[in-house]
Amino acid sequence: MSYTRDELRWNGWGLARQSFDLGGNDEKVWDFLRESVGLPLLPETPARPLEACELPDVRLDAATLASLRDLCHASTEPLQRAAHALGRSYPDLLRLRYGDLSSAPDVVAFPASHEECVALVQYCDSASLAVVPFGGGSSVVGGVEGRGGPGHRGVVTLDTTRMSRMLELDEVSHTATFEAGVWGPDLEQALEARGYTLGHYPQSFEFSTLGGWIAARGAGQQSNRYGAANKWLVAARLATPAGTWETRPFPQSAAGPNLNEVVVGSEGTLGVITEATVKICALPEARDYRAYLFKSFEAGAAAIRRIVQAEIPVAMLRLSDGDESYFFGALQGLRKPHGKGTEVAEKGLAALGYGPGRCVLMVGLEGDKAHVRGALAETLLACTREGGLPVGTSPGRAWLANRFAMPYLRDPMMDRGIGVDTLETSTTWANLPRLYEAVRHAISSKLVRGAVLTHISHSYKDGASLYFTFFFPRAEGGLDAELAQWRGLKTAASDAIADHGGTISHHHGVGQDHAPWLGREKGELALGMLAAAKKTLDPQGVLNPGKLLVD
Amino acid sequence: MSYTRDELRWNGWGLARQSFDLGGNDEKVWDFLRESVGLPLLPETPARPLEACELPDVRLDAATLASLRDLCHASTEPLQRAAHALGRSYPDLLRLRYGDLSSAPDVVAFPASHEECVALVQYCDSASLAVVPFGGGSSVVGGVEGRGGPGHRGVVTLDTTRMSRMLELDEVSHTATFEAGVWGPDLEQALEARGYTLGHYPQSFEFSTLGGWIAARGAGQQSNRYGAANKWLVAARLATPAGTWETRPFPQSAAGPNLNEVVVGSEGTLGVITEATVKICALPEARDYRAYLFKSFEAGAAAIRRIVQAEIPVAMLRLSDGDESYFFGALQGLRKPHGKGTEVAEKGLAALGYGPGRCVLMVGLEGDKAHVRGALAETLLACTREGGLPVGTSPGRAWLANRFAMPYLRDPMMDRGIGVDTLETSTTWANLPRLYEAVRHAISSKLVRGAVLTHISHSYKDGASLYFTFFFPRAEGGLDAELAQWRGLKTAASDAIADHGGTISHHHGVGQDHAPWLGREKGELALGMLAAAKKTLDPQGVLNPGKLLVD
Repeated sequence: MSYTRDELRWNGWGLARQSFDLGGNDEKVWDFLRESVGLPLLPETPARPLEACELPDVRLDAATLASLRDLCHASTEPLQRAAHALGRSYPDLLRLRYGDLSSAPDVVAFPASHEECVALVQYCDSASLAVVPFGGGSSVVGGVEGRGGPGHRGVVTLDTTRMSRMLELDEVSHTATFEAGVWGPDLEQALEARGYTLGHYPQSFEFSTLGGWIAARGAGQQSNRYGAANKWLVAARLATPAGTWETRPFPQSAAGPNLNEVVVGSEGTLGVITEATVKICALPEARDYRAYLFKSFEAGAAAIRRIVQAEIPVAMLRLSDGDESYFFGALQGLRKPHGKGTEVAEKGLAALGYGPGRCVLMVGLEGDKAHVRGALAETLLACTREGGLPVGTSPGRAWLANRFAMPYLRDPMMDRGIGVDTLETSTTWANLPRLYEAVRHAISSKLVRGAVLTHISHSYKDGASLYFTFFFPRAEGGLDAELAQWRGLKTAASDAIADHGGTISHHHGVGQDHAPWLGREKGELALGMLAAAKKTLDPQGVLNPGKLLVD
Repeated sequence: MSYTRDELRWNGWGLARQSFDLGGNDEKVWDFLRESVGLPLLPETPARPLEACELPDVRLDAATLASLRDLCHASTEPLQRAAHALGRSYPDLLRLRYGDLSSAPDVVAFPASHEECVALVQYCDSASLAVVPFGGGSSVVGGVEGRGGPGHRGVVTLDTTRMSRMLELDEVSHTATFEAGVWGPDLEQALEARGYTLGHYPQSFEFSTLGGWIAARGAGQQSNRYGAANKWLVAARLATPAGTWETRPFPQSAAGPNLNEVVVGSEGTLGVITEATVKICALPEARDYRAYLFKSFEAGAAAIRRIVQAEIPVAMLRLSDGDESYFFGALQGLRKPHGKGTEVAEKGLAALGYGPGRCVLMVGLEGDKAHVRGALAETLLACTREGGLPVGTSPGRAWLANRFAMPYLRDPMMDRGIGVDTLETSTTWANLPRLYEAVRHAISSKLVRGAVLTHISHSYKDGASLYFTFFFPRAEGGLDAELAQWRGLKTAASDAIADHGGTISHHHGVGQDHAPWLGREKGELALGMLAAAKKTLDPQGVLNPGKLLVD
């Protein structure tokens, strides 16, 4: 295993020993961030240490605890309960940092096999205990909060990470079967040793699991090439109160609805995903990540559309709007100051029309050498046709080097009075400009001070995703005031999405935070179907109560 | 519209004015087919004409009929009732040819809009009338039989073909919205006029509808390029007893399970598909269809696997096994006799090792000129690496010219005592040889005389389909004896598929014929979920009773 749970921050991102690299230029970076949110001074708003936080009493009696311990390893240690109380959404972090551990589970159980999972889930069902599946715990939508439903006597969080073996590698069919609690890096290491990759690299890659990717319908940064979870999932095995539910590994089938597409996005409400068979690819022989500058977001988006609709085989297309391009350019420049040449180059770019407001498009290519070479020529042509200026591979290298680092910046920002959240949606190409403006406007109108950055990071022949990052001075007045501030932002953005033809989530999932908008998107009939399907597997609603479907 | 229902055979394939072209060499062809099934003489087994068939009485009273007629055009004409009694499966044809019209619906209704469909379905629900959605009626799995469920007072077949308009063409997002009753040729004509294609060309293309393709989870011959229905469906609208159920056109979403993947394959049991938004492609600039010969099925399959796993962009890969290659080669030779050169060429091929038992792989490429040129070089290399011998484009041209023709041969075969049926499955590459042998063996062991032909027509990185065509002397003894003969074959083949890791259908669907095997494939928990989901939309089970899910 890459690490153990106690090497991770219980109330923040990633490894406790690791932090965001400011390149030794801390003061300049913090000055820049302070100015970005319009604060005269950065306040000190540290998180409460675990020792100062109060955990609720364990509600289970000794006999119940003994029964759970007979089924698998189970812990009531404070660190485990705290680390499994919540996920990594902004309101989750607020609560953790204020020491609100009211949603800590009574017990954290660590089944080591599918069979142990089934026994555990069925015991919980019989004992009226809620079961909250928990992989990496990186949910940013309230998907892993340790809450029970009506009538539940307590909450058992089911940590899947002891189920982490590769069970089969089928080199003929290019599929691999893993236990679902495997961490991202361990999965890739097992595949890479045999010459393969799943290619699923979400920003949370280092601290998330295969089962979580499937449950939350995740997409990796190279989704153009490798697809989101629904594209690479071939078969799944789940533990449910009604027993084992499995899908079968057919490359394609017309035997009724495709239930893999119901497993993907089920968010622990239909069963605990214990094993999964996934499509794998030969490790790419070559990689090419390079950047192009565009004079406008529209021009960059047009280049992406041109590339995907022409079916040029790319791994990633990532376009930042003017505000985001400026922000990350400036941040990078402060962390690793450029030489004098940069200033001259900037003047040249401005003279060419690529001055302030320019947008950066990162084009990532992966595959065998000949394909990458071909795609390089084709993407170059497509970009230049929309006015894109090629600026080489060094921005690509910088992006690759930092691609998992950004979440580490959130904790120190929150320590200094700066709130930061992200949300994402998708829509058709025709509707993209309208949705972009509407969501930006909705968020901006709720921000007295702060900024909204936007990028397109996933694209399709029929449309693309929009990813919004926004930061703001944290409200004063304590946890409730801060949660209200967040709720105001979230509601405005989500309403704008629902009102303007976007999906409430492109790859973060629904959890609790998006559940109120799911009915507007899918319709009440669809929610009724999902609830009815759930009831056949989980008649008492013990599986992840309150997530995906509002009770 | 391309044609009206009364231009079509009510008890056989396609247009009444069209038939299979034997090239004027009827006697030779029939001699060959007779020998293929091992008959000394071909008996005369004509179908009963409609005038000689008895239709069951219409069970509905005048008030009910009047109510239906208030909602939309509705017919009780004998031709309409007969033409909507059954689909085009082998047992359906047997029943039609014997004049068994016991499953003729009481009424055929022709709603002209989504709203009329909703009103009709809701009226039927309130009046305890079964509703059988019917597009082209080309189901080969018993998917459109006009049967009611327990407690239903009668059966209304809902013919969708008056709903055939293109509602929107979004040239920015490359999507189009159609009413679901549009016939294949009309859909393509509307798109081609604007420079686009859906690219969905099943063998039934000319006589099937968009809604049927979606309902049955169909795949077209060029599925490598254009995908099966689940790949191109973006959004759907359905009429259900509970009202309108819609999905939304997002390019990708993480808002819970993907319900488009439940619509696809729902076979009219969850609602009547009335409108659909689909992904479209620019019309290909170039096409290249050519053939390669392989010394064995294994070698040809290895070439396909090599091509798809290397992600070479192909439109179609279609590999016939030795028996099928021989059969179609001989048939083609009899219809259009070759010159003397052929005999010499055959000797040369035999000397090179491509004699009897050789397998034909058809490689279809579509796209812009540069892509087709590149893919041609890459597929050539992949094929030759597995011992494939390129034999040029003329077999490709012949295949394209005849690709919708084969179903026309079934009726005259049945007229002459020859039964013919097909079935298909899919599995992983690793399991393909085992499944191929098992299904061939299962069918062969039930055939006292006759033949089994097999091809791979759909391929994926993780596996491929297997399509079996088998013909045999029709049993003597009347309809029951013939149905029993078919059931013996079907059961043996289906058991072999279920026992050896195949799906019960790759692209034909489930209908009634495969329903008994669905539980073995999906598990009883999954069937329970689907039944529960259906109940929320269709509490009284009026929608297509007995299909997909056994009551």
